[in-house]
Amino acid sequence: MKAAVLREIGQPLTIEEVSVSLPRAHEVLIRTAAVGVCHSDLHYIEGLYACPKPTVLGHESAGIVEKVGSEVTYVKPGDHVITCLSVFCGHCEYCTTGRPYSCQNPETGRSEGEEPRLSQKTGPMHQFYSLSSFAETMLIHEHALVNIRKDMPLDRAALIGCAVTTGFGAVTNTAQIEVGSTVAVIGCGGVGLSAINGAAIAGAGRIIAVDIKGSKLNLAKHFGATDVVDASRTDPVEAIRDMTGGGVEYSFEALGLKKTSEQAFRMLRASGTATIIGMVPEGQMIEVSGADLLSDKKLQGSNMGSNHFRVDMPRFVDFYLAGKLKLDDMISHRIGLEQINEAFAEMKRGEVARSVIMFDQ
Amino acid sequence: MKAAVLREIGQPLTIEEVSVSLPRAHEVLIRTAAVGVCHSDLHYIEGLYACPKPTVLGHESAGIVEKVGSEVTYVKPGDHVITCLSVFCGHCEYCTTGRPYSCQNPETGRSEGEEPRLSQKTGPMHQFYSLSSFAETMLIHEHALVNIRKDMPLDRAALIGCAVTTGFGAVTNTAQIEVGSTVAVIGCGGVGLSAINGAAIAGAGRIIAVDIKGSKLNLAKHFGATDVVDASRTDPVEAIRDMTGGGVEYSFEALGLKKTSEQAFRMLRASGTATIIGMVPEGQMIEVSGADLLSDKKLQGSNMGSNHFRVDMPRFVDFYLAGKLKLDDMISHRIGLEQINEAFAEMKRGEVARSVIMFDQ
Repeated sequence: MKAAVLREIGQPLTIEEVSVSLPRAHEVLIRTAAVGVCHSDLHYIEGLYACPKPTVLGHESAGIVEKVGSEVTYVKPGDHVITCLSVFCGHCEYCTTGRPYSCQNPETGRSEGEEPRLSQKTGPMHQFYSLSSFAETMLIHEHALVNIRKDMPLDRAALIGCAVTTGFGAVTNTAQIEVGSTVAVIGCGGVGLSAINGAAIAGAGRIIAVDIKGSKLNLAKHFGATDVVDASRTDPVEAIRDMTGGGVEYSFEALGLKKTSEQAFRMLRASGTATIIGMVPEGQMIEVSGADLLSDKKLQGSNMGSNHFRVDMPRFVDFYLAGKLKLDDMISHRIGLEQINEAFAEMKRGEVARSVIMFDQ
Repeated sequence: MKAAVLREIGQPLTIEEVSVSLPRAHEVLIRTAAVGVCHSDLHYIEGLYACPKPTVLGHESAGIVEKVGSEVTYVKPGDHVITCLSVFCGHCEYCTTGRPYSCQNPETGRSEGEEPRLSQKTGPMHQFYSLSSFAETMLIHEHALVNIRKDMPLDRAALIGCAVTTGFGAVTNTAQIEVGSTVAVIGCGGVGLSAINGAAIAGAGRIIAVDIKGSKLNLAKHFGATDVVDASRTDPVEAIRDMTGGGVEYSFEALGLKKTSEQAFRMLRASGTATIIGMVPEGQMIEVSGADLLSDKKLQGSNMGSNHFRVDMPRFVDFYLAGKLKLDDMISHRIGLEQINEAFAEMKRGEVARSVIMFDQ
């Protein structure tokens, strides 16, 4: 199969032939239908986060089951699925207490010495986040996928695999905003737009979108933002404190930057909660005022939207098919696997909400 | 009446004659029975936090109602009360949503131009936290006190006014720990011991006390700690991660220091919550790793134990009288008002859990 391979930090991905093994007991082989190009993938290309190489990146995908292992009863060939990197064991302290996103025994592929899931003649190919979705085929654990309705278009389903789950889940699972509350979202890419959309569906009273690109702020309105702040023209903390009489109840940071994470905390009113959704690079510290904490403020991270994806994702599918989740407008481009490096370049320029790579079915 | 007055930062308090006005409509005049010497008072003496001067410090008190204003029906002369600095208006967005500790319109005494509550011949005396408890008499708003059982000893009741409400409340109101969870408490003064005691009453499975004084660690065991870590001999973060297989579910910082606040965050396991109870000096920043946040960790402040003191404090009184709240052992010394500066000196040396100033009744 064809796959986009990362060999070295900072280098373009190369399209190569990669061999994929056959499913063992709890594994599922999937024909990839669509995969989103996500900012987290870029972090690994740029070396801000580390992963073993060579590897096939990609983790925001949907596809059709091709073959299942002997023990798999949850799906069968022909089923449509969304993948999720929050692979859960189902029996650890986190899985058994409703927090499978923090699973302590996530499966990480086959053991050393066994035939690897992915390989080339020259040796094994590392699987990324137990998925490696920038490829025509994926061989993954059955706990890394969810079965979905067949009337759901698979390109839009792919977005649910990461951006929607991360952004929407941060609002409803991690922060659990109240109906009528006031929310700010910093960064209007795929994750931020999903947070805005989630806040709208959850009944937020006011949703303030913050970005430095006017085009993204316009898109944010379509996703449910009631107000927008152009951070290239004004200090978003002061602007939001003014607009809200002292700050918001909930802020969300969807960029993974130190500066905007600290802004998210500073734009809170008393008893407010800042949720950092973005992946802040390893080693960077977020600084908050100790005296400010005293007014019962909270800074929290969100791991993949604190998801229970087997339950959450089918709901997101239903929301899309009911016209409430605006996935059509989140896709800026549909491209082929060969255009993947261009998609990353555009993402770095902050120009697109989401590029989605399509595979022929 | 006699009161301990702060005239200048860094100077000892002076015992002076201060005049107290008569209660207006919603005010209550109280004969002070006992007042605890709290670390927060020291912050104002040392100038780490600012307040208008001259002032009478003190805020952890209990006493007996002497006179009430014309509109006061909640208490009558002879009633026993505990004071609380979380004065609530009862009608703002926070008071009406169960968060009176963040009240946006707390009463702050009489208007300018009116006769001040406290004064000397040379002019008005500022009231501290709307209480000023280092004095024989207090004139306060009826929303700054709670009526309690008369069989509760007033010296131990005084501790409920701040240390217990702050420490116990941080565990049960702010963090809302689960039964059986693993808890660490850094700092075993009055607030930390109250957090430990609260965690024990709330059914924590394991309670790890951290301090640099062996005597306080012994006291911590009496309050319910199941394990102790002497931070003068070992790195508490490493020790606790080892003891708990990766970190605790809940940590509490009861000192108000940057270093220990950051330790509280670093000793968390995935999805853990660090609650900063101590008053970190103005301007000091708490730094947490952005990448660490990704595992759903949380850093939060606790404002006076996120209290609803009119409900919480009578429950604490009942816990004491039922033998569950260990207030007897929290009082290191009972002293007269004249010994107040010595009490602060001892506190700075980290030697005492709590000194309580007693007034003749």
